[in-house]
Amino acid sequence: MYRILIIGIGAGHPDHLTVQAVEALNRADVVFVPDKGAEKTALRQVRHDICARHVHRAGTRYVPYEIPRRAVLAEGYRAGVDDWHAQLAEGYEALFAAHLGAGEWGAFLVWGDPALYDSTLRIIERVRAKGSPVEIEVIPGISAVQSLAAQHRIALNGIGEPVLITTGRRLGADFPEADGSVVVMLDGEEAFAALDAPDCDIYWGAYLGTPDEILVSGPLGAVKDEILSLRRAARARHGWIMDTYLLRRPAQD
Amino acid sequence: MYRILIIGIGAGHPDHLTVQAVEALNRADVVFVPDKGAEKTALRQVRHDICARHVHRAGTRYVPYEIPRRAVLAEGYRAGVDDWHAQLAEGYEALFAAHLGAGEWGAFLVWGDPALYDSTLRIIERVRAKGSPVEIEVIPGISAVQSLAAQHRIALNGIGEPVLITTGRRLGADFPEADGSVVVMLDGEEAFAALDAPDCDIYWGAYLGTPDEILVSGPLGAVKDEILSLRRAARARHGWIMDTYLLRRPAQD
Repeated sequence: MYRILIIGIGAGHPDHLTVQAVEALNRADVVFVPDKGAEKTALRQVRHDICARHVHRAGTRYVPYEIPRRAVLAEGYRAGVDDWHAQLAEGYEALFAAHLGAGEWGAFLVWGDPALYDSTLRIIERVRAKGSPVEIEVIPGISAVQSLAAQHRIALNGIGEPVLITTGRRLGADFPEADGSVVVMLDGEEAFAALDAPDCDIYWGAYLGTPDEILVSGPLGAVKDEILSLRRAARARHGWIMDTYLLRRPAQD
Repeated sequence: MYRILIIGIGAGHPDHLTVQAVEALNRADVVFVPDKGAEKTALRQVRHDICARHVHRAGTRYVPYEIPRRAVLAEGYRAGVDDWHAQLAEGYEALFAAHLGAGEWGAFLVWGDPALYDSTLRIIERVRAKGSPVEIEVIPGISAVQSLAAQHRIALNGIGEPVLITTGRRLGADFPEADGSVVVMLDGEEAFAALDAPDCDIYWGAYLGTPDEILVSGPLGAVKDEILSLRRAARARHGWIMDTYLLRRPAQD
């Protein structure tokens, strides 16, 4: 029986960790640390800082593991993700077998909340489905969505209105009909720029909770170009970007 | 200039507080404590426990304030909320004037996340709009939605799919067309029971994160009656209930 903690560590601010997450982190005998390549060096540093600051027990082992490159999505998005998850599940199973002693807890530290656009839970379910018994404990974390709202000092929802959380890939399809607020995560394609909704308010944020944080808000038509140019410059400077935004028709707030 | 901290304190588990929230709580000179009446005694106790456990500084003043009863919603939901917020804003302004000295920080402790179905931010914006200068700092917290997903060990979203967060009041209108997952908060009317979607999976939870937590999951048609009877019995026993649930068509996971 493998015992795995899936710990949400927040969206970039080391103090977004909950007291429960700190306790869980100190229960872990092994922390599995992904090796995503150079572009995410800054995030690796924050993860390192979190452990340095909050791990009080002695003897925690940090075990790096490689994340296979995701295949080109020729057969569509879901098929690509499916293959990728299958590869990851094999890697996880080998990791557990090699590094977890009897009764030991292993931990994955997940950016944001493990429940939102993260695959760790699904991959571990696959390890389970392959026949390895795994006990899972999930510790929720502050997601980028929440950090965005807090930093802009806004509610995600209009009064009594729904909130749709979606991806850049789906924004074009979801937005025009959406009633209420729309939060977009994982938008590498700057989908907001293609919307024809100049009066709609956008609340955008990048590197949320870190010293590099950038916030812009205003009517989409008025601030779109500013966001695009800030976004491109920051991405060029840092080598990567993580951003999220909320869109809302002004009448609804 | 009034200085106000709006601190998310999680969904009922005292250790859902983030390290950032603990720090903010210890910055507060005054903590405003709502008096909601007898039915929420258990929640008042958890709030009390949170302060007892996490406030390390001396001299914090706890100032109770009354929450006016919300008017009967004869003129529609938004009009009722609007009046209620206006009354609350007047009360807040009087509180600040009476209890906050120069340079002092006041704090509101908000269940869940201040960005999700909570009115504190909006009410303080009204105090500001009335002419009182207020500096606001928002600390995000773990919402019941996240606690629900963690306790059921599920992701909120299907792979690449959106998540709609809505209210019981709107569920009938939002659900049939919704593509992806739907999370329902604030459902006093058991709206799930009226849906005609027996094959849809429901993940339901009440008193999340507390010792009284109840979790049920399965196809809606198979577990609906169980949830209804558990829900009614628990509400009768405790005098109140706080529950939330996720609905998802099984093919999408």
